[in-house]
Amino acid sequence: MDTTDRIKIIPLGGVGEVGKNMTVFEYGDDLIIVDVGLGFPSEEMHGIDLVIPDISYLDDKKEYIRAIILTHGHEDHIGALAFLLPQLGIEIPIYCTTLTAGLVKVKLKERKLIETANLRVISPDDKIIAGSFTIEPYRVAHSVPDGVGLAISTAAGTIVHTGDFKFDQTPVDGRITDFGKIAEFGRRGVLLLMSDCVHVESPGITPSEAAVTQTFDQIFREAEGRIIVATFASLISRVQQVVDVAYRYGRKVVVVGRSLENNVAMGRELGYLDIPENTLIKAGEASKYDPSQLTFVVTGAQGEPMAVLSRIANREHKTLTIQQGDMVIISATPIPGNETAVGNCINNLIRQGADVTYSTIQRVHVSGHASQEELKLMINLVRPRYLMPIHGEPRHLALYSKLAQELGYTVENIFIAENGKVVEVGPNFGGVTGTVPSGAVYIDGSSIGEIGDIVIKDRGLLARDGVLMVVLVADQESGLLVGPADVVSRGFVYVREAGELMDFVKQKVEQRFGDEDLLSDQAGTIRKVKDFVGDLLYMQTKRRPVVLPVVMKI
Amino acid sequence: MDTTDRIKIIPLGGVGEVGKNMTVFEYGDDLIIVDVGLGFPSEEMHGIDLVIPDISYLDDKKEYIRAIILTHGHEDHIGALAFLLPQLGIEIPIYCTTLTAGLVKVKLKERKLIETANLRVISPDDKIIAGSFTIEPYRVAHSVPDGVGLAISTAAGTIVHTGDFKFDQTPVDGRITDFGKIAEFGRRGVLLLMSDCVHVESPGITPSEAAVTQTFDQIFREAEGRIIVATFASLISRVQQVVDVAYRYGRKVVVVGRSLENNVAMGRELGYLDIPENTLIKAGEASKYDPSQLTFVVTGAQGEPMAVLSRIANREHKTLTIQQGDMVIISATPIPGNETAVGNCINNLIRQGADVTYSTIQRVHVSGHASQEELKLMINLVRPRYLMPIHGEPRHLALYSKLAQELGYTVENIFIAENGKVVEVGPNFGGVTGTVPSGAVYIDGSSIGEIGDIVIKDRGLLARDGVLMVVLVADQESGLLVGPADVVSRGFVYVREAGELMDFVKQKVEQRFGDEDLLSDQAGTIRKVKDFVGDLLYMQTKRRPVVLPVVMKI
Repeated sequence: MDTTDRIKIIPLGGVGEVGKNMTVFEYGDDLIIVDVGLGFPSEEMHGIDLVIPDISYLDDKKEYIRAIILTHGHEDHIGALAFLLPQLGIEIPIYCTTLTAGLVKVKLKERKLIETANLRVISPDDKIIAGSFTIEPYRVAHSVPDGVGLAISTAAGTIVHTGDFKFDQTPVDGRITDFGKIAEFGRRGVLLLMSDCVHVESPGITPSEAAVTQTFDQIFREAEGRIIVATFASLISRVQQVVDVAYRYGRKVVVVGRSLENNVAMGRELGYLDIPENTLIKAGEASKYDPSQLTFVVTGAQGEPMAVLSRIANREHKTLTIQQGDMVIISATPIPGNETAVGNCINNLIRQGADVTYSTIQRVHVSGHASQEELKLMINLVRPRYLMPIHGEPRHLALYSKLAQELGYTVENIFIAENGKVVEVGPNFGGVTGTVPSGAVYIDGSSIGEIGDIVIKDRGLLARDGVLMVVLVADQESGLLVGPADVVSRGFVYVREAGELMDFVKQKVEQRFGDEDLLSDQAGTIRKVKDFVGDLLYMQTKRRPVVLPVVMKI
Repeated sequence: MDTTDRIKIIPLGGVGEVGKNMTVFEYGDDLIIVDVGLGFPSEEMHGIDLVIPDISYLDDKKEYIRAIILTHGHEDHIGALAFLLPQLGIEIPIYCTTLTAGLVKVKLKERKLIETANLRVISPDDKIIAGSFTIEPYRVAHSVPDGVGLAISTAAGTIVHTGDFKFDQTPVDGRITDFGKIAEFGRRGVLLLMSDCVHVESPGITPSEAAVTQTFDQIFREAEGRIIVATFASLISRVQQVVDVAYRYGRKVVVVGRSLENNVAMGRELGYLDIPENTLIKAGEASKYDPSQLTFVVTGAQGEPMAVLSRIANREHKTLTIQQGDMVIISATPIPGNETAVGNCINNLIRQGADVTYSTIQRVHVSGHASQEELKLMINLVRPRYLMPIHGEPRHLALYSKLAQELGYTVENIFIAENGKVVEVGPNFGGVTGTVPSGAVYIDGSSIGEIGDIVIKDRGLLARDGVLMVVLVADQESGLLVGPADVVSRGFVYVREAGELMDFVKQKVEQRFGDEDLLSDQAGTIRKVKDFVGDLLYMQTKRRPVVLPVVMKI
């Protein structure tokens, strides 16, 4: 069998969802990358700020990277670019649409790459030639404007990649998913459809953004006090909806939160936000207006502790405090893992007297992703030979596979590939053929990749029962204990009330190790002290703090 | 105004939801308690096993407690009884129905209170006299059988307490909520309705348990391999549904998981589980049967790491491993905070080749709580003067209040009271009148209440960036540093790769503190070392581990 005439597809990334952050396409001696995004740490990743893809697979292939193409401006698709571009190659052309470029530039500036990066703004009508790849973008509707899907063609055939998409018939900016172009790809013949499947658990069709405008209209019509809308900083179109409705009811709009302010400024500059004159006012001017004339758009719809809404909820915001009569709209759905944080935020706002509405009780947010009937429509428009669900967790991939089987596809032609798997397609073959190194690289403070799973595991142990340190001072000649042992703990017991327990530990340690040469095998001593104190504490408290013995030599 | 003729109602408990765990009723010199339950720790409560109510308010009132009444057998209503009964008074009569008593006895046995506790099994037809209180239980449908609501009467009037309830017209055991008795209370006249409101975000009517049986029927009819159903250990009626459908399709049932096995044995003994002969088999016998003849009922529907389903998902279970063709049913909805754990569990089962279904995609679980129309029906049946939503978080209480206002109630007559608030009602008054001590007591290992918020906060800090210990040895005469400093860390950096950083810290500390008297003000020294090393590390890493300095005197 001829294996040279195949395109290799390799999703990379560290957090569950397949190819959401990054996907590598290889054909002959050429290589292109679609999206370079980041993930947010899960609960167990104690103290980690961000998660970016491990790209060690590309270590010896960098000279062959012909292009990076970004489908849209969300963090999980562009957020790792500024971290990884120096490693990938600063000269690689990066293709994306105008708004995506605006959002990318902010990141490149922060890491001082804006001067050197090779950013090329494209329109969805352009065609990109990158080595033996031809890439034809096509417009898709999503929750950030200016998103595209991609038709990626080589001599071996065409792959259609959906990006993040929905078939919204009435999007805020009026730019619908390009049915015509997608159907045209289908007519020309497609080897593989790589389809967003993250919303596959929802039957039917995802409601249009227009449904949110309707809800906003009702709320704005009835509200008598201030209205505070919390959303994502990148949700430019949601800001447009708020502005439109606020203007309709004679309200001014105040934008609060650095990332949102930046994005709004950029969205206006690039023509993605249409704000009537005298509608946007500065926070300082708000006091001139009656509460019924004010709307605030703020960050923090996911309950992020440092964002504006949480700070308002915790009475920690400098300028904004809840007043009786305030209506707060949480215009987002909690990302899995954030449910409790968002719930606490809502509760605290209500405790202060706000009226709060959120997606569980009113349609103040809709998903940006296709539901089941839209996913089927995409398959039927493209009519590919093979299918590969992407952007979902294993449970979404499995459900997408069932859906495709209802449409007549057989399991052999549906590729379930997690990150690091190699999928190959060509005129005579399609399947999963191997595995390459892939995974998560942790960003913590200023370090990239220094913090690994061992450190994370230690943090988990420290969080569970705290830490207890035992210090012994030994005579460097005899190796015998000099002076009393010392014990310090944190997160284990409330020390002021646990003096007795601490004294007990000291006394037992001195008894047990008083006559022993602590220095002849120092590592052995440390191990023994650790086990001895660990067992002692477990017997006394049924808890297992991390025990850290130190033996000092004098 | 005569304030003696009032009933005081005080919800107690530590985790958000009002009066879910425990409520105190006071009238004259008498006091009764409804439910003594526990809460599960939230994410921030690092290492905590369970949370029970702080009952310090009752310290000087114990002799007046006339009765404890338990509405139903769920942990959050009975789980703290065995911990708190010795404090409350072992002689206090505890009233509950047969199945609730069965579930309580397990807990009392574990803590060796079964011989001395004054447990009194009642039927919903009984009337309990407790000092000046008369309590009339009435049957309610919920997700555990044998639940009751309570009409609590004094000379000042009657309070109706719903317990956890729904108006299921076709519950598994056929025992519906007692419409007649509730309407009769309404006819007699009710001062206050205390209503479960936790499911108030759902419009309409909560689907009947019968809907779950229908889904099970379809799955069992079509499944060709083994079926594994995960549910709560206390969901006796769900086990009944599985058994009924398994029997219908000629499958044997294996129960796996200690708590579930105990509850099934008890449910059968007390007549709450009707299992045909030869249907229940032991795990060891399963190998005799074809996969298509087997059903497993297991614990772990919430993704709890130690429960059976998670252990299967992580390939850690002794006897059960996933086979191709297995169908897993997660018959539960994730409790807020458990979404990620449940999602991971589903993903891992799918990775091993199981087909998994869950409440998002099929009706394999329904809530045990009333939705909006049922809550309105309850209000209209009882027609109370005052309303007090219970068992919800602030956002649920606020939404219930809106609902009640639609029915014509004014905000003054709806009492929004969090735990620790005192509500008073009488013939001439109803309102929130004060606050008493209340909150959470943490259970961690063998300790009850020793771990407080300071320790929890320290655990959070340890989890974020780890810990770094600095040990200095000082001469007891001069107070000067003797020998080199030592540094030990955990959860901060991967030590093998960070030798340089550690050496740098040692060197800087020795430079900075080498000429100083470390002992004249030891507390001051410790503070200075802490700040110095903390700043040093932040400059180097942008991280802030907990710094623990120790100064030893030699």
